[in-house]
Amino acid sequence: MSTLFVRFRAESLACNGEFYMHLPPKTVPFFMKDNPYYQRETKTLILLHGYSGDSTDWLYNSAAADFSLKYNLAVVMPSGGIGFYVDKKATGHRYCKFIGEDLIAYLRETFGLAKERDNTYIGGLSMGGFGALHTGFMYPETFSGVIALSSALIIHGLKDMKPDMPEMMANYEYYVDTFGDLASAENSDHNPEVLFMRNKNHGKENPRIYMACGTEDFLLAPNRAMKSFLEENGAELLYEEGPGVHDWNFWTPHAYTGIEYLLKK
Amino acid sequence: MSTLFVRFRAESLACNGEFYMHLPPKTVPFFMKDNPYYQRETKTLILLHGYSGDSTDWLYNSAAADFSLKYNLAVVMPSGGIGFYVDKKATGHRYCKFIGEDLIAYLRETFGLAKERDNTYIGGLSMGGFGALHTGFMYPETFSGVIALSSALIIHGLKDMKPDMPEMMANYEYYVDTFGDLASAENSDHNPEVLFMRNKNHGKENPRIYMACGTEDFLLAPNRAMKSFLEENGAELLYEEGPGVHDWNFWTPHAYTGIEYLLKK
Amino acid sequence: MSTLFVRFRAESLACNGEFYMHLPPKTVPFFMKDNPYYQRETKTLILLHGYSGDSTDWLYNSAAADFSLKYNLAVVMPSGGIGFYVDKKATGHRYCKFIGEDLIAYLRETFGLAKERDNTYIGGLSMGGFGALHTGFMYPETFSGVIALSSALIIHGLKDMKPDMPEMMANYEYYVDTFGDLASAENSDHNPEVLFMRNKNHGKENPRIYMACGTEDFLLAPNRAMKSFLEENGAELLYEEGPGVHDWNFWTPHAYTGIEYLLKK
Amino acid sequence: MSTLFVRFRAESLACNGEFYMHLPPKTVPFFMKDNPYYQRETKTLILLHGYSGDSTDWLYNSAAADFSLKYNLAVVMPSGGIGFYVDKKATGHRYCKFIGEDLIAYLRETFGLAKERDNTYIGGLSMGGFGALHTGFMYPETFSGVIALSSALIIHGLKDMKPDMPEMMANYEYYVDTFGDLASAENSDHNPEVLFMRNKNHGKENPRIYMACGTEDFLLAPNRAMKSFLEENGAELLYEEGPGVHDWNFWTPHAYTGIEYLLKK
Repeated sequence: MSTLFVRFRAESLACNGEFYMHLPPKTVPFFMKDNPYYQRETKTLILLHGYSGDSTDWLYNSAAADFSLKYNLAVVMPSGGIGFYVDKKATGHRYCKFIGEDLIAYLRETFGLAKERDNTYIGGLSMGGFGALHTGFMYPETFSGVIALSSALIIHGLKDMKPDMPEMMANYEYYVDTFGDLASAENSDHNPEVLFMRNKNHGKENPRIYMACGTEDFLLAPNRAMKSFLEENGAELLYEEGPGVHDWNFWTPHAYTGIEYLLKK
Repeated sequence: MSTLFVRFRAESLACNGEFYMHLPPKTVPFFMKDNPYYQRETKTLILLHGYSGDSTDWLYNSAAADFSLKYNLAVVMPSGGIGFYVDKKATGHRYCKFIGEDLIAYLRETFGLAKERDNTYIGGLSMGGFGALHTGFMYPETFSGVIALSSALIIHGLKDMKPDMPEMMANYEYYVDTFGDLASAENSDHNPEVLFMRNKNHGKENPRIYMACGTEDFLLAPNRAMKSFLEENGAELLYEEGPGVHDWNFWTPHAYTGIEYLLKK
Repeated sequence: MSTLFVRFRAESLACNGEFYMHLPPKTVPFFMKDNPYYQRETKTLILLHGYSGDSTDWLYNSAAADFSLKYNLAVVMPSGGIGFYVDKKATGHRYCKFIGEDLIAYLRETFGLAKERDNTYIGGLSMGGFGALHTGFMYPETFSGVIALSSALIIHGLKDMKPDMPEMMANYEYYVDTFGDLASAENSDHNPEVLFMRNKNHGKENPRIYMACGTEDFLLAPNRAMKSFLEENGAELLYEEGPGVHDWNFWTPHAYTGIEYLLKK
Repeated sequence: MSTLFVRFRAESLACNGEFYMHLPPKTVPFFMKDNPYYQRETKTLILLHGYSGDSTDWLYNSAAADFSLKYNLAVVMPSGGIGFYVDKKATGHRYCKFIGEDLIAYLRETFGLAKERDNTYIGGLSMGGFGALHTGFMYPETFSGVIALSSALIIHGLKDMKPDMPEMMANYEYYVDTFGDLASAENSDHNPEVLFMRNKNHGKENPRIYMACGTEDFLLAPNRAMKSFLEENGAELLYEEGPGVHDWNFWTPHAYTGIEYLLKK
């Protein structure tokens, strides 16, 4: 296995984007000779970090190296900023486009990776779980699978935010900066549900989805709501709950389960 | 000499900030025994990149390693985003505070660096030249010297920007996103001149300044205007022009000159 | 927490040495206010990789970030080469000196870390477990604690190696290159037991020791032998066995146990 | 342009090897549309560091980024240890094989680079100049061009070394460790001249060569001797001298000249 840290010019960001990647060996190592995942082409899994995270979160805290070696996966861990992986109109603030277009284009032209939809997955945790669903539905011809863990599905709550609200994770100005008009955000392309329905109505195949959330996670309610939405609208979904809060003790084992769900199709 | 790459939690960014640093040896190397810069404490020079740059720009393209070793300087090269090193109200978008407070605090508590104003300088090129002047004037008790090369002193031009203007480096929305209300930006804290005058009027010593711009640089006019402003208002300034455009052939030699100007006080 | 990657000039290696470090915050984070490990100074734990590993092994595969944050530890992960962390006479091949002198000196002068014996520990796995014991006993005034996991205690087997032996991990020339004369290696300073006894006989306090080995590990026998040696000679030792082979499923939980053993003194 | 830092499993080293790489954009940037070097496939230039250097030497101190962008070159800067880029018999100490086989194989299979001899060059300075000549002659079917700057052509001096010689750069044991039997080294495969003649005698085309050395460099004499050897034996060689010592003021401009010489064939 090799590990790469890459900075590459991304038009969407008007500067360099960055990612870490664990890349399985091209030549099957002797101890993987009987591993069924090495009987086919390397697949690509992009893993998105949460709010206040960066490219090192999955790298340092999960078993990303083991994901890569065990499942013959190119595991790509970009830094995606603090903008919920959505696009703003301002130059350099296109975080969805960064993942779904610039990063994918770089992986294809530099390494020959992520060329086929069937070989390309996206996952994430918390803000990155939101991002994985949103980016997956924005680019349904690029991604065939989504892993969304403890997803920060805050889109329906934005319309109730007020300038004088108590500041939890971020202030009111942050949400306006990120999503624009908060009143209409849930009806815009910022809402993964809007994208999912559009794909469905236009006959575009949505990605298969694995979702998981801890039963003690403060984000449980919106995850259950998303589950209901997806089931009612015919998504191909595996949804799981289990004991746990918003931390790596929950995310790492459920990432394994999500990967196996996507690979076992 | 050692070189460090650091990611540290920065409240101003609501995530990790990053920097590279060349650090001269604590024990004076034998071939520096007669070097006068090694007769005193290591000083700190923060170098800011330009628009679309990052922490690797000075590192890869200038002689930053030589700056460090020759002048006994801790040369600190942070990534500062694409926001002209100014603060927005939104959580996580305080780029001036990141440099002037969070980075400085980290350098002090981790390495014991940049504790005294006399030992702490800030420089930059293009957008980073603007940032060096702006940050230096925002924190005059922290920085005793500024190096501003080919500075992107665009603040007076903002009020004339229109939504349908031709897009050069960035679109109209970018400038609004970065500076807020464009009509009033030149009268706000985003304008280094406002900060300079405030310091002066409050009896706070402004940093000494080295400015340089190439005579073929497209930013020559606003650099000359800034020179006039600073001279008229009693700044301690060395201003230089010379043949050159907006590239490293101009920046590297003038960075040497700027460093020597600041050190020779 | 911050994470640093550092390349620094190491005379022992005649070139740069490198390490990663997770550094806990100087200012106690609010969620650590009740954590007893934050009621005292940050301690330093150096973690050595195994044969064919490097500075990223503990970083990517263990819970090193959690070790640091949970226990208020500066976790230092150097690259130590493939030389079993022993010193050769040739310039640039002093791997024990690199860890025990150059790295320690750099940590002290740059970060103010690892100044007191009581605050300085060393651990490792496999070849790094050997290295932790060996380095800990070579520098008993520097290290007060050792964590040795699945240690590659091969020193007594060297004398039986032959040029035509079947090549497992490395060839005969490798062992000669690393240890010099194989017949006398077990009687030399390359043998941690020799160092342990010398310290004892000279009235120097040896470090406290945590050892662990999986019951299915191919290195179980020499670990049991080392345990017997240490017990017979009055070491302060906690030795543990448990189900497991030579992998991270064994190392990570036993590293937690080892850290708690050393910290609870 | 993108910049990559890569750690990959190298059998020759029995651990990870590492390199930095500047990679020009696959899509020709608008400001390179008239650049003739972008009218053909990206070529690969491996640049070897000197004694006590590593993968960051060319990266931080030369104009490697400009080499890459200006000439459409993948500039690959590996860490090669302190072993003069020659192979020892001991497992993990095959520094020539690392560059000439493992690195090349990784570049080919991961990026599709360095597949054709005509597109693959190797250069270096000091110990790396020796390494570039030696590796180039060892793998004449892989490399079509060599750039050798201020090369440490010490092979003929080894036989005169004594255990009690004054220690300059390294001790006697270091040279024995690196080259084996010093008396016969100049007649062995460690000598680039031996390899050059073997290629010639076997009808294998040797690479084209650019050599340069400063007239104040302490290595001038052996560089002149190598020049004579190569000319007498029909090498395709451009040899240059100029004012300068053993530093980057000499190496950077002569690297430009060497690159242009190789590219202008």
